[in-house]
Amino acid sequence: MRQMAEKIIKNSIAAVLPDEAVARYLNDFKCRDGGVIVVSIGKAGWQMAKAASEILGDKITKGIVITKYEHIMQPLNNFECYEASHPVPDKAGFDASSRVLELTQNLTENDLVLFLVSGGGSALFENSTLSVETLQDVTKQLLACGADIVEMNTIRKRLSQVKGGKFAKHCYPAKIQSIVLSDIIGNPLDMIASGPAYPDCSTSQDALDIVDKYHLNFSDEIMALLNEETPKELDNISTVITGSVEQLCEFAKSECEKLGFETMIVTDCLSIQAREAGMLLGNMARTHSRAGKKLAFIAGGETVVKLTGEGKGGRNQELALAAAPVIDGLNACVFSVGSDGTDGPTDAAGGFVDGTSNSKFIELGIDVAVVLQKNDAYNALQAVDGLIITGPTGTNVNDVAVVLIENC
Amino acid sequence: MRQMAEKIIKNSIAAVLPDEAVARYLNDFKCRDGGVIVVSIGKAGWQMAKAASEILGDKITKGIVITKYEHIMQPLNNFECYEASHPVPDKAGFDASSRVLELTQNLTENDLVLFLVSGGGSALFENSTLSVETLQDVTKQLLACGADIVEMNTIRKRLSQVKGGKFAKHCYPAKIQSIVLSDIIGNPLDMIASGPAYPDCSTSQDALDIVDKYHLNFSDEIMALLNEETPKELDNISTVITGSVEQLCEFAKSECEKLGFETMIVTDCLSIQAREAGMLLGNMARTHSRAGKKLAFIAGGETVVKLTGEGKGGRNQELALAAAPVIDGLNACVFSVGSDGTDGPTDAAGGFVDGTSNSKFIELGIDVAVVLQKNDAYNALQAVDGLIITGPTGTNVNDVAVVLIENC
Repeated sequence: MRQMAEKIIKNSIAAVLPDEAVARYLNDFKCRDGGVIVVSIGKAGWQMAKAASEILGDKITKGIVITKYEHIMQPLNNFECYEASHPVPDKAGFDASSRVLELTQNLTENDLVLFLVSGGGSALFENSTLSVETLQDVTKQLLACGADIVEMNTIRKRLSQVKGGKFAKHCYPAKIQSIVLSDIIGNPLDMIASGPAYPDCSTSQDALDIVDKYHLNFSDEIMALLNEETPKELDNISTVITGSVEQLCEFAKSECEKLGFETMIVTDCLSIQAREAGMLLGNMARTHSRAGKKLAFIAGGETVVKLTGEGKGGRNQELALAAAPVIDGLNACVFSVGSDGTDGPTDAAGGFVDGTSNSKFIELGIDVAVVLQKNDAYNALQAVDGLIITGPTGTNVNDVAVVLIENC
Repeated sequence: MRQMAEKIIKNSIAAVLPDEAVARYLNDFKCRDGGVIVVSIGKAGWQMAKAASEILGDKITKGIVITKYEHIMQPLNNFECYEASHPVPDKAGFDASSRVLELTQNLTENDLVLFLVSGGGSALFENSTLSVETLQDVTKQLLACGADIVEMNTIRKRLSQVKGGKFAKHCYPAKIQSIVLSDIIGNPLDMIASGPAYPDCSTSQDALDIVDKYHLNFSDEIMALLNEETPKELDNISTVITGSVEQLCEFAKSECEKLGFETMIVTDCLSIQAREAGMLLGNMARTHSRAGKKLAFIAGGETVVKLTGEGKGGRNQELALAAAPVIDGLNACVFSVGSDGTDGPTDAAGGFVDGTSNSKFIELGIDVAVVLQKNDAYNALQAVDGLIITGPTGTNVNDVAVVLIENC
């Protein structure tokens, strides 16, 4: 079962790597005669640009990448590649973003911009008439008053020259085709990278209400920007989501089917506590192991870890560990991995347990309930060879957990 | 959707009522020529006996019921009906249990005992050579030292003349046919009513180890009983589980199918936190509402409530409430009920929410997260007409939660 798990993990993550994800879409992509300008922003910016470069070749008239420091592997033909700070924006990001605006200035309706978007784009792709310091002060005020992420974005989209659909407006009348690698559950396109090429659903009035609500003290310059409306309709955009947790689940499902399992995706927006999710998947294994069939259940999303101790672990490891006592003695396994190859502050991508794990824990004197209380899943799983190690994968489309049930 | 929910609840609970459950089995039951002795113990003791009486009529040579105070509705022909204390046993229970042992003394292999068992049987059916006071003192010592329920039962089965298979041994060589209404997830037959007619899997050595472990101070009389082994094999018994959460789930499933839904039982041994289960079922609704089909997911078991406040509610109400924000705007509903018609210390059996509930909460200024923190689901659900009231049903086979997803 461990081998099947490794195979399912390897192949389903491979299918949602930025390169694969971009390639899947671009293989059918028809460039206009005039060629295409490629703008690639986010943590996977370099990989996505590389995939585009390999497929489109010299149809790319100009390309530009803005990604995180140390994320550019080598130069790309016809591309300017910039690195900048994430998650806190810096001047390098501002300058690179200015360069994007320059390259996409005065476009005509015959031009086409291919916009490759991945997580981290909010910090990396930013430009404003305000200074970096002023923007940082606004962020500090918003954090201090307790504004939530939606409220923060409503303010910040108005202070930016690229967020909230403004980059698409800047490119008009050129068409802008976005390919999005989604790291947010539910794929809210106005949230991913703060939606530079997607209509904004918040209004100026929303922004002013937030200023009132928290008694914020902003300069006239900022207030003038808050009064400017963001684009509500954009007729030069089209968007495709090419990497997401939905796809991760679908690929995991199809890998399970190749191995002869009947499959079901339980959910692709899992959001409950890691240990409760593990128990639930264990409960499912227990119920369905009576059916005498090869069954696989897949749950994608991002669980939550409740910190109650100071041990070593991550949400995927906690999920797997919590399932161990529930599936004790069954011919079944539960495993869970982060698609980025990193689970919590550990070198593991996730955890794996099967029907024999619980007795191994008991033999070793490991009390699963106590380990969960200490958030120390890493050490417990390591003791029973239950860690899944992939190394960084280069993508980030949340997590996937799988239950496999064999014939009894 | 609310009407469909009411129908599913009503019909699936009706199918696991003690009367229905006993009838389903007894309609095919062949009495021996010599007739049958009926012993019915537990909270549903009177209803189960009544069903047997209606079906078997004068084939019953003698019957006896031991149930909880105020649970006998009317006399039953040919039955002695006794009431006793639950959950703490009393002398009335001891006396009635003595009467059971009298009626089943000196049976022959031509005799047949029909043994009807429901929850609460541990307290109601009890007899010992020790006094009630001595038994109560043992229980107090076990509670004080922190022994768990399995350890407590290992000791108590040995002090009893009926628990741990001893009632079946007492009836030998008569055959004893048990019909069990299970209130424990997984139907552990040696646990339900402490298994009077089921082989005990604990040993005298286990009992002595517990005495050592907790340094218990027992009299010689008690120690002598602990050294007596309980029956490990019983060849005069047969057992059928006729009401259980598995069946509750199956009936809910078939009710959903009658209403045109494609169905799946997620699990019949749900054991996670109520609010996490509600969110998970909401996540499932969100994922599968995109399929454009009529789908129903069923989860049976017993969730856990984490007490963080002093409000009014129950586990089924918390489950439903927690699902409300997750299914906001969907053409879906989530509901959950206790099969006994009682959810927590309230007059409701459970809760119901649909895709409109969350906006109703917002309009009313009800913050679901705050309500859950206060464990005050009852008042919040009441405000949006989301309480399910059935009144006491007369059965107890745990809870069932259902997600219905309509075409979008």
